[in-house]
This record gives sequence, C-alpha cells and structure tokens, in this order.
Amino acid sequence: MSSKNLLAIVLIGMIIFSCKPSEEKNETVDLTTQHELIFPKGEKITNNNFIGDVWVHMQVRADSVNQNSVGTVTFDPGARSNWHSHPNGQIIMALDGVGYYQEKGSAKKMLHKGDVVKCPANLPHWHGASADKEFIQIAITSRVDGPTEWLEPVTDKEYLK
Amino acid sequence: MSSKNLLAIVLIGMIIFSCKPSEEKNETVDLTTQHELIFPKGEKITNNNFIGDVWVHMQVRADSVNQNSVGTVTFDPGARSNWHSHPNGQIIMALDGVGYYQEKGSAKKMLHKGDVVKCPANLPHWHGASADKEFIQIAITSRVDGPTEWLEPVTDKEYLK
Repeated sequence: MSSKNLLAIVLIGMIIFSCKPSEEKNETVDLTTQHELIFPKGEKITNNNFIGDVWVHMQVRADSVNQNSVGTVTFDPGARSNWHSHPNGQIIMALDGVGYYQEKGSAKKMLHKGDVVKCPANLPHWHGASADKEFIQIAITSRVDGPTEWLEPVTDKEYLK
Repeated sequence: MSSKNLLAIVLIGMIIFSCKPSEEKNETVDLTTQHELIFPKGEKITNNNFIGDVWVHMQVRADSVNQNSVGTVTFDPGARSNWHSHPNGQIIMALDGVGYYQEKGSAKKMLHKGDVVKCPANLPHWHGASADKEFIQIAITSRVDGPTEWLEPVTDKEYLK
C-alpha cells in the first residue's frame, strides 16, 4: 500500500472516529447529574417516616420571614414516604426520574420531570420513587397551620398496586 | 517516509484528536441548557413591570388548593424587575447565571446558582440579571394577603451602583 493510500484511509478513519457519539457525552446530559449541579443531594433521612433510602436538601426552612419550607428530596428506586398530610397542603415539582404519588381514595399516579402536583390540605397521601428508577422532587410546604402529620407506612401491596 | 512511520504519526494524531475537549461537549454542560430541560423558558413578559427581555414559565398558579404561586423567570443580561413588594414576602431560588437582588435601604447583592433569598413581606425590592450574564430563578410567592404591589422602575443609576 502506498503512503498516499494509507493516509487517505486513516484520514477517513479519523473523520468517522470524531463523529462517533461519545459515551462520556451521554453521561454529561444525564438529568440527575444536571440536577445535582443546581441543588445538592443533601443528607440521608434516618427517621422512620420513610421506607428505603431517601435524601433531603432543605433549601428553605419555614420561619417568621416566610412560612414556606422548600426542600429537594431524592428517593432511591422503591423508596417512598409513609402516608402523611399537611395542614396547608403541599406543592411537589418533579425534577427528574420516575415517581409515584397517591392521595387517599384515589389511584396512584406516575410523575415525570416537569410534572407539578398540588396536594390539598389535610388529605393523606404518599410519594416516592418508582420500583425501577429514582425520583427527585422539590417540595414546597406552608407551615402556617402547623407541621406535617405522619401516618402509617405504605405497604408493598399499596405501593405496587 | 515509510508506511509504518506514517501510520504511527497518524495514530498519535488520532489519540490527540480524540482527547481534545469538544466544543459541543462544553455546550452540553451549559447550565442554561440543563435547566431548560427541566422547566421551559416560558413566555416573554410584555407588561411594563420589567426593563429588558424577561421570560416567565408559571409552574403553579395560586388558587383555593394552595395560596402559593411558583414561576421560573429568565432575565436577559441587563434586564430587571421594577421595584415591587409582596404582602407575604417571596422566596427566590437562583438556578443559573448571575443575578442582582436589592432591598430598599440595603446594598445590591449578587446571586449565583443555588443561592436562596427570603424577601420579607411588604419590603420593596427588585431582582434581575447582571449586566453581562442572564439570570434564571424560581420565585415562590404566597398570595394569602394579596397580589404583588408594583412600584417605580429601577433606574440605570440604581442598577449599576
């Protein structure tokens, strides 16, 4: 093979090589990574109000200046809150992954990135990740009429229904 | 030059070429792009309560279920709100870019990704982008005691001070 032919073949190889989508690039656009760049994952929750591994980063604590608390919550696959209710309701904003949300007496709903839920005051509900994918959400909770009321755990039967 | 030597040189070139950070990759990790994947930029604001180009995507409108409104606001460089106040205050969460925030009687502050501001009730303030960089923020505003009170525009002198 002449030097000229070899050069041509290798140059074509370089063009193909440079156009191949890199796996690193795909990792870079992963939404979890993107989200973590804005708000940290926070601390692992150690109380008994959750099943599975759940992290919370409290951005805003309710105080006399503002009665809303704001936190980012990350649920591992299969993790979920217990049933609970809020005296002033709650706003849930799905940032990433696939989540479940259920109000007492209604069917479970799936939540995806960009979905927003308004949970009415004093209505028992739970939220968490789907069985296969983690779920990251912002929770905005007014404390004007008091704190969250925690109820019983969500059974596997309820979770999987 | 022999075919072997040429091949070696070109292979080294391919390795160097493949390791060079691609500009496309840098664009991919741009936080604005990341943010827009979660919440849309929304509609351009056409009222007179802002100077410059400002977009808003209302995620949550205040209603009887929840008295908080939640919106994502994108300010072009140099764009800002007029002075205004909220009867129940406001929470501002900086998502991206570089922003300015000023309360009446205090010095202007710079805001960066992840910063959170609690603006007290009825205290005139303004927020917007820095002169050179856009600013993207979430605003959480309780409407329990009424809507935003809009005041005078922020002069160039105030903005640049």
